[in-house]
Amino acid sequence: MTAVKDSVHDYISLDPVAADLVDTPEFQRLRHIKQLSTVRLVYPSASHTRFEHSLGVYHLASRALSHLGIEGEEAAHVRAAALLHDIGHGPYGHQTEDLIRRRTGRDHDEIHDLLDGSVVGETLETHGLDPMHVADIVDGGGGLGQLVSGELDVDRMDYLVRDAHHTGVPYGTIDHGRLVRQLRYRDGQLVLAEGNVQTAESLLLARALMNGTVYRHHTSRIAGAMLERASERLVDDGLPIEEFVRMADHDLLVALGERVPDLGKRIERRTLYKRAIWAPLSAVPADVVELGHDETRAAEREIAEISDVAPEKVIIDAPPTPRIKESRSRVVVDGVVQRLESASELVGALRATERAQWRLGVYAPEVARDEVAAAAVDVLDLPMHVVSQ
Amino acid sequence: MTAVKDSVHDYISLDPVAADLVDTPEFQRLRHIKQLSTVRLVYPSASHTRFEHSLGVYHLASRALSHLGIEGEEAAHVRAAALLHDIGHGPYGHQTEDLIRRRTGRDHDEIHDLLDGSVVGETLETHGLDPMHVADIVDGGGGLGQLVSGELDVDRMDYLVRDAHHTGVPYGTIDHGRLVRQLRYRDGQLVLAEGNVQTAESLLLARALMNGTVYRHHTSRIAGAMLERASERLVDDGLPIEEFVRMADHDLLVALGERVPDLGKRIERRTLYKRAIWAPLSAVPADVVELGHDETRAAEREIAEISDVAPEKVIIDAPPTPRIKESRSRVVVDGVVQRLESASELVGALRATERAQWRLGVYAPEVARDEVAAAAVDVLDLPMHVVSQ
Amino acid sequence: MTAVKDSVHDYISLDPVAADLVDTPEFQRLRHIKQLSTVRLVYPSASHTRFEHSLGVYHLASRALSHLGIEGEEAAHVRAAALLHDIGHGPYGHQTEDLIRRRTGRDHDEIHDLLDGSVVGETLETHGLDPMHVADIVDGGGGLGQLVSGELDVDRMDYLVRDAHHTGVPYGTIDHGRLVRQLRYRDGQLVLAEGNVQTAESLLLARALMNGTVYRHHTSRIAGAMLERASERLVDDGLPIEEFVRMADHDLLVALGERVPDLGKRIERRTLYKRAIWAPLSAVPADVVELGHDETRAAEREIAEISDVAPEKVIIDAPPTPRIKESRSRVVVDGVVQRLESASELVGALRATERAQWRLGVYAPEVARDEVAAAAVDVLDLPMHVVSQ
Amino acid sequence: MTAVKDSVHDYISLDPVAADLVDTPEFQRLRHIKQLSTVRLVYPSASHTRFEHSLGVYHLASRALSHLGIEGEEAAHVRAAALLHDIGHGPYGHQTEDLIRRRTGRDHDEIHDLLDGSVVGETLETHGLDPMHVADIVDGGGGLGQLVSGELDVDRMDYLVRDAHHTGVPYGTIDHGRLVRQLRYRDGQLVLAEGNVQTAESLLLARALMNGTVYRHHTSRIAGAMLERASERLVDDGLPIEEFVRMADHDLLVALGERVPDLGKRIERRTLYKRAIWAPLSAVPADVVELGHDETRAAEREIAEISDVAPEKVIIDAPPTPRIKESRSRVVVDGVVQRLESASELVGALRATERAQWRLGVYAPEVARDEVAAAAVDVLDLPMHVVSQ
Repeated sequence: MTAVKDSVHDYISLDPVAADLVDTPEFQRLRHIKQLSTVRLVYPSASHTRFEHSLGVYHLASRALSHLGIEGEEAAHVRAAALLHDIGHGPYGHQTEDLIRRRTGRDHDEIHDLLDGSVVGETLETHGLDPMHVADIVDGGGGLGQLVSGELDVDRMDYLVRDAHHTGVPYGTIDHGRLVRQLRYRDGQLVLAEGNVQTAESLLLARALMNGTVYRHHTSRIAGAMLERASERLVDDGLPIEEFVRMADHDLLVALGERVPDLGKRIERRTLYKRAIWAPLSAVPADVVELGHDETRAAEREIAEISDVAPEKVIIDAPPTPRIKESRSRVVVDGVVQRLESASELVGALRATERAQWRLGVYAPEVARDEVAAAAVDVLDLPMHVVSQ
Repeated sequence: MTAVKDSVHDYISLDPVAADLVDTPEFQRLRHIKQLSTVRLVYPSASHTRFEHSLGVYHLASRALSHLGIEGEEAAHVRAAALLHDIGHGPYGHQTEDLIRRRTGRDHDEIHDLLDGSVVGETLETHGLDPMHVADIVDGGGGLGQLVSGELDVDRMDYLVRDAHHTGVPYGTIDHGRLVRQLRYRDGQLVLAEGNVQTAESLLLARALMNGTVYRHHTSRIAGAMLERASERLVDDGLPIEEFVRMADHDLLVALGERVPDLGKRIERRTLYKRAIWAPLSAVPADVVELGHDETRAAEREIAEISDVAPEKVIIDAPPTPRIKESRSRVVVDGVVQRLESASELVGALRATERAQWRLGVYAPEVARDEVAAAAVDVLDLPMHVVSQ
Repeated sequence: MTAVKDSVHDYISLDPVAADLVDTPEFQRLRHIKQLSTVRLVYPSASHTRFEHSLGVYHLASRALSHLGIEGEEAAHVRAAALLHDIGHGPYGHQTEDLIRRRTGRDHDEIHDLLDGSVVGETLETHGLDPMHVADIVDGGGGLGQLVSGELDVDRMDYLVRDAHHTGVPYGTIDHGRLVRQLRYRDGQLVLAEGNVQTAESLLLARALMNGTVYRHHTSRIAGAMLERASERLVDDGLPIEEFVRMADHDLLVALGERVPDLGKRIERRTLYKRAIWAPLSAVPADVVELGHDETRAAEREIAEISDVAPEKVIIDAPPTPRIKESRSRVVVDGVVQRLESASELVGALRATERAQWRLGVYAPEVARDEVAAAAVDVLDLPMHVVSQ
Repeated sequence: MTAVKDSVHDYISLDPVAADLVDTPEFQRLRHIKQLSTVRLVYPSASHTRFEHSLGVYHLASRALSHLGIEGEEAAHVRAAALLHDIGHGPYGHQTEDLIRRRTGRDHDEIHDLLDGSVVGETLETHGLDPMHVADIVDGGGGLGQLVSGELDVDRMDYLVRDAHHTGVPYGTIDHGRLVRQLRYRDGQLVLAEGNVQTAESLLLARALMNGTVYRHHTSRIAGAMLERASERLVDDGLPIEEFVRMADHDLLVALGERVPDLGKRIERRTLYKRAIWAPLSAVPADVVELGHDETRAAEREIAEISDVAPEKVIIDAPPTPRIKESRSRVVVDGVVQRLESASELVGALRATERAQWRLGVYAPEVARDEVAAAAVDVLDLPMHVVSQ
């Protein structure tokens, strides 16, 4: 059996389907998409890719299925889905997801089109698997889709430990061995066995700590927002969105350097915009928190005009308000299946913590920071104390 | 400079005072006191000792002092205190602490007597250090005593990562490098610098997860309670408490095997009592939760009599109700020093979680479990559903 | 399936036989026998036990059998043997092996007597296994005995990584995942598959580096020699050898402290003898290298008399001349099974290196070192330059 | 003090010079040059960069200088040189080194020109450091240049552990803590202190094992040879060499995909050439082993013509015959400084092993493999058995 050496799970054995899928161009492309996009500008060791992550998810799915005692055709579909769950990502992964959704209406986990008639799709069929069923599972469908994309999915288990390994930040080091062993399948739902409220909580806590320290680090957010704006300009400038979607990281970085150099070179050389505004939820008017895409661009233009800088020098970055997907995971308590949010006091507190960590950012080149901050306070109706020093 | 290889911190450089202190019999004795007493009956790799832990605490204290820019005589006293902070422990550490306190009135961190006139004390004096000042620091005294015994102490930082390394349970893997670097000294208090609410929370969370999974694992609690009862009988049987206090683990294990064999051999061979009762706080009358030592013994005798077993076959184990010392740690938020419990939503939730995890245990040999459970329900006025299956 | 958390292999799943064997008193005793006896006096984190090591060997054996495609009854016997391979050890493992062999004629891997009629033996029979066949495998017998005790055995694979984990010395960190996957069974012999000369070499090299740095560290050798002498005096003093053999580490440490206190207390407190002589092979007459037990004792007495110290103050420590068992391991090269020593240039060099590292030691209390050194040079016919400074 | 989190060394503190150097475009470019170029096609986790490696080398240099007691201006120059030692690399590091040398006459460690008048050079001068002296040290000059580029340099120490961490292959996990602590400066030379022959050997052994398993893995060699040929065609096709030299990995990958697509796309998608010939030293005529660049191209053309494939479909890959630079490292033995090759039996054996592992490769697309093999046997005068199956 083919095996691949992995820095997190040691050897990963590939079944014949997986071995063939790995060789497809669609999967090989994942070698060139970094798992954490701009996080490496803060944590230099974090250059790992969705290729190795996908192998890791496949590995954990295989082990989970084996512990659950699920074999045969359905297991084969789930394993394939685990391996392929990220092939729908555009360049720089989540960072270009909104742009792609706005222009194509598709999310990265909707891969039905991608599997239809492609090399990956044919490879699946050669092995007697149904590409559309695999795509359904990637999208969370079917009882076992939860294992790939749900509250207790192996995707999360892999990325937490992998991101910890590669960033050096230990918070993500969950006990994936225990999680995989304690999964049960009850009435069509994945649950954690009796005695595992804390096991479920540990997953939430790990993600909350990684969120604050790694995933939402302000420097990474600034670079990410710059990348998103630059990508939008690239597409607006004439690059067909379907071509954009199929780019790899290096394609995008070169294209931005050539066609949107003011932002592209800044990202490449890490001469990033700075925070003009950094405002907590309590200081931001509700309509600003929920600003749509077009209104955001309009506000940016307005701020730019007032502060007398070019319009592309102002970036408003209002992340969605937090939700904690894992809070809906199921645990058995005293014999009864419960949602974690009912069984755990921590869920509510984590929700509050996530809200407390939310920040509206307005970014601009260092030289224009003060002017942009003043204008943003005005345009967005913010209090003065949210101006970043 | 002398250096010791450590499995957690790699090489630990010892200053001349530390190098001499390590060679004293009082410190060498720590080689024979396991860090986690009975936890190794659940996690077999957890055989590490207070010797290596003490070196680790010394190491982190040295680094923290260096980052804080504290040098000279006071730093030398703090380093010595960090190294010596555990020499007051009796055999099996915390497991015999209550017994020793009841019989001697002394806690393990009161080491003034121990330093007075001993080899350790003389060694300190040879190097121009004041043993009584070192003892004060071990007891949390002075502004810098907090570094050794306080809400943000290096003791906790070392044991969490060390226990994670040796048990294999990853939850304790905190970012001690960050904690040590973010310490500040403000108005006579140790605080964490701006932007570290989450750093402080991570310490609490790590301990909460380790509590549930490792430190308070029911099997370890049963063995610990058996060890405590056996030790009490050993002392009642004529072993002078001052001799008991100076024993190492192996001395106690042999003594129990010889003089309290019914319990001693069970601990050695892991043929432990079982849970007859396992009751949450909500199910236990307040006066039972707070039962004093003598009343506990009386209740055990009563249960034994009713269930017709020998009195030493019944053990009531009511841990103190939880407190979260770290919740009082100080962090700088928007320029102002705050208690973590004010700055963090999580503290309240963790308090609730700890209370939810509290359990009253009544233990007995497997053959007598049902009878003892029935009698305990009666004597302690418990509902039927807390009887363990 | 029962699972145990291990700090090296994460979760170890126990089959029903193993789960029952673990509960026997003979196996539980391994909790109290340290894997590296006196090495912890040099590497303080090395307190791990033969209990966790045995679980690790069982785990690797299970995985190797699975990769080899061996199932059924024979596999069950091999797994049981892997788990039980160390139950024949006396207290402090290898350190008392020579003494036990001289007095009983038995090695630690001859466990036929031990299994006959014991709880372990009965447990095996309950599960339909033949205790004598298990004992044969522990002794290296049968084709698959090599997996437990041979040139490519899983015993070695486990202890190298485990000792690295617990000492902090990285040299033992072999790629056990690869070794286990590359094992093949060819003509009744375990071999490594084509392309694995270097895999085999890595095992030799890891052991060679661990030998010099850890296993044969001079401080550990001194403490070990003292322990051996002290044990011999204990037995000579009337402790029945069969009782001695069944002791655990703590029993022996207490017994030595009480009955051979001059050495026992020194070991416990690490106030060790020092090297009077430290001589390479080239400087030692051949008959001294090969000195038998009785002649060694006679020479010690002679040295003691000349240097005017008590006879028990002189210890001669002449280890056996090195052999490299792994050099006989088999690898497939160009389709042909070869011994590693034929396929690898490194084997010869490692033999030479091991010989170059061999040292004759003569130890004595620090105050008597010079006198003992002078007398030893005389009695053992050594050159002056081997006197240790 | 600025600190960067690293997955290998935890926090790396940057002195003010380093903090400024890191922000230069020349250093930021290292974010985009992978440490192990094509090795990630075999070990998917190995995406780490020369940016993080350079920080690691700086960190180890700082610690080594501190242990050596070297401070002041010279230390500052050495630390800067350690940080900057890789900025002379072209895209894909060592893989394009020969091409660059042939076209510019410059090696990657000759950075005098690069520092002269550049932002890096100015930054050094701003801090009172001499760029030319830094460049000398990078090139191994001065007594302390050995620390950055010599037999016992910190470059090697960092990359071995880092490559082990990111590939998952443990062989590189040396004890860098010990190496750094055992360095001494004697008569203008870096040596390892008494008692460290094995420490020095461990460095050699780690590199030998990593060579065979990782650095010279045949798949990585094939991809590397393809990349080199493609780059040569790119430059021949008109890309100015000075522009080529300053490219980052993503620039080159995109340029190859566009301008040398037959090879570029194969590298990107890992549809690599296969081995037609794989021949040990003993099977290759001496003049073929030493074939110069132009003769190699001529032979390739000849093979292509005979086998009737396009000339760019044949690649001859004859690596330089092995040398073991570390064998010249110095160790103190019995008070005398010796070369390791004199003090260690292993060096000679490793030389033989390295020669035994040497392979001449001839690569071609899978469909043309047999024809190319037949022609290569003819043209290069090889025996039949070296044809790869």
